[in-house]
Amino acid sequence: MSVFTPVPEAVLSQWLKNYAIGRLTELKGISAGVQNSNFFVTTTLGRYVLTLFEGIGRAELPYYLHLMAHLARHGLPVPAPIANRDNEYLGTIKDKPAALVMRLSGASVMAPDEHHCTRVGAMLAGLHLAGMSYGRRQPNPRGPAWRTQTAARVHAYLPEAEQALLDREIAFQATIDTDALPAGAIHADLFRDNILWDGEVIGGVIDFYFAGNDTLLFDVAVTLNDWCSLDDGSLDPVRSDAFLHAYHAERPFSDAERAAWPAMLRAAALRFWLSRAEDFHLPREGEMVLVKDPDEYRDILRQRIAWSPALPAV
Amino acid sequence: MSVFTPVPEAVLSQWLKNYAIGRLTELKGISAGVQNSNFFVTTTLGRYVLTLFEGIGRAELPYYLHLMAHLARHGLPVPAPIANRDNEYLGTIKDKPAALVMRLSGASVMAPDEHHCTRVGAMLAGLHLAGMSYGRRQPNPRGPAWRTQTAARVHAYLPEAEQALLDREIAFQATIDTDALPAGAIHADLFRDNILWDGEVIGGVIDFYFAGNDTLLFDVAVTLNDWCSLDDGSLDPVRSDAFLHAYHAERPFSDAERAAWPAMLRAAALRFWLSRAEDFHLPREGEMVLVKDPDEYRDILRQRIAWSPALPAV
Repeated sequence: MSVFTPVPEAVLSQWLKNYAIGRLTELKGISAGVQNSNFFVTTTLGRYVLTLFEGIGRAELPYYLHLMAHLARHGLPVPAPIANRDNEYLGTIKDKPAALVMRLSGASVMAPDEHHCTRVGAMLAGLHLAGMSYGRRQPNPRGPAWRTQTAARVHAYLPEAEQALLDREIAFQATIDTDALPAGAIHADLFRDNILWDGEVIGGVIDFYFAGNDTLLFDVAVTLNDWCSLDDGSLDPVRSDAFLHAYHAERPFSDAERAAWPAMLRAAALRFWLSRAEDFHLPREGEMVLVKDPDEYRDILRQRIAWSPALPAV
Repeated sequence: MSVFTPVPEAVLSQWLKNYAIGRLTELKGISAGVQNSNFFVTTTLGRYVLTLFEGIGRAELPYYLHLMAHLARHGLPVPAPIANRDNEYLGTIKDKPAALVMRLSGASVMAPDEHHCTRVGAMLAGLHLAGMSYGRRQPNPRGPAWRTQTAARVHAYLPEAEQALLDREIAFQATIDTDALPAGAIHADLFRDNILWDGEVIGGVIDFYFAGNDTLLFDVAVTLNDWCSLDDGSLDPVRSDAFLHAYHAERPFSDAERAAWPAMLRAAALRFWLSRAEDFHLPREGEMVLVKDPDEYRDILRQRIAWSPALPAV
């Protein structure tokens, strides 16, 4: 899979005639994109991001685009997709599905403090609350079935101690019943690089292309593991408390969630350990994916097995 | 009609529980609002404007709110209304219809130059192009029927020379057939104070509460008369050319529009002369409307009768 499709200005100018956003004044590739081809597009009437989808099937895209539209419509700083003159969000450029979204302002913060974690907790709860009225359904593409299959694929590449850890965790997770937990549309990848800060305030929540329907608590665990971990994988209690209390203030945790929380933190760690181990040991040919360190999430998993914080009670 | 309804923070905080935008952190009345009560609302998740509708019937509001949503969805800098948890744009505060919209950034420019007029021309064309796929219909509330009725109401209050001007113009406009002109959703009040500039760029187009379905050319004329007039009511040819060519580049004028143009410029001038004359001579009791000078638009009408610029040809 080649992840970068060049788009000449003449091609884009022609394509923009399907829209009502004026003339192209600037087109700039975004180098940070590793999964899709992304461009900053400026016209006489506004600033947008163009995405050519390189690895996601056309049938899956309406779920993501309409989810982004739904959340933006509910007042959250999510890049709203732009409808063309036929009222469609999805078009085609160079035989690839393509969409324009609003460009939001801000930059990632990679060393967040308590304040940032408070904002992120409240934002995640806002996404979950607004998502409750979203009508489309699509399973989390990195859910339990994917987890079991991926564990089987990477198992042979791991050192013995990690094989034992993996076997034990897969067996443990198979005993967890999540049916009683509140579920809905989740972002599922709300890492630090997917939030843009405009000063102290969240200016944008981006990259919804791992979203799906799953338990909300899984999303809380994914987010906490990225935003509140120390270098050794253990949790920073100050940031962790700030994040969880801010979430809880908007959408109070249920008793069932409090009971499932330690297992969910481990499931969230396992999910990223597995995907990173797969990218590392079984890279897909020609793919320009930035390989991230799987050991980071192996360590987070070990730390969560050793200890998990309690969820706030009423 | 009292135009300002105070909204205590406690009332708003309770009302915001219907939304997914976090907690209220700041509430501030906007003194500029003369038709409705407007407030800047800041929450933990974003910045919004709250409007309590003081003089517009609840039945007319969905046309305006859905038009704003439609235009924002098409990538234009229009304040998108915020849906509550029931997916509704319109709520109620203190027995008045109330809506939240996104707060856009920027400030009005009251002495625009050629550059501003180019941007505004392109933006107006973008609004018209995006509006073509808008499904709802509502007649322009300040259209031909209103014009005739209002002329009859204000006639007696005018000096003799103005009565003659009014009589002649009403008679002239009655001879104009607009059926062949492209029509659609128009803003109908795109004055300088309804565009927010973020540096050189339009950050927001606001106040859609005079919008309706009418000929697009009427909107072009209303906008030109405000943005490109000199103090004596005559047109600044530099700004006027910039505005018209920028519009024409996005949505080329038709032959029928070129023929109707001088009459349309006069119709647009007449509309504001009449509404200002009515506000001046027949103020509604208790209304805190900022009375604007009717003579400005009397002079613009006289100047357009004397001379009108040609619309650009292909």
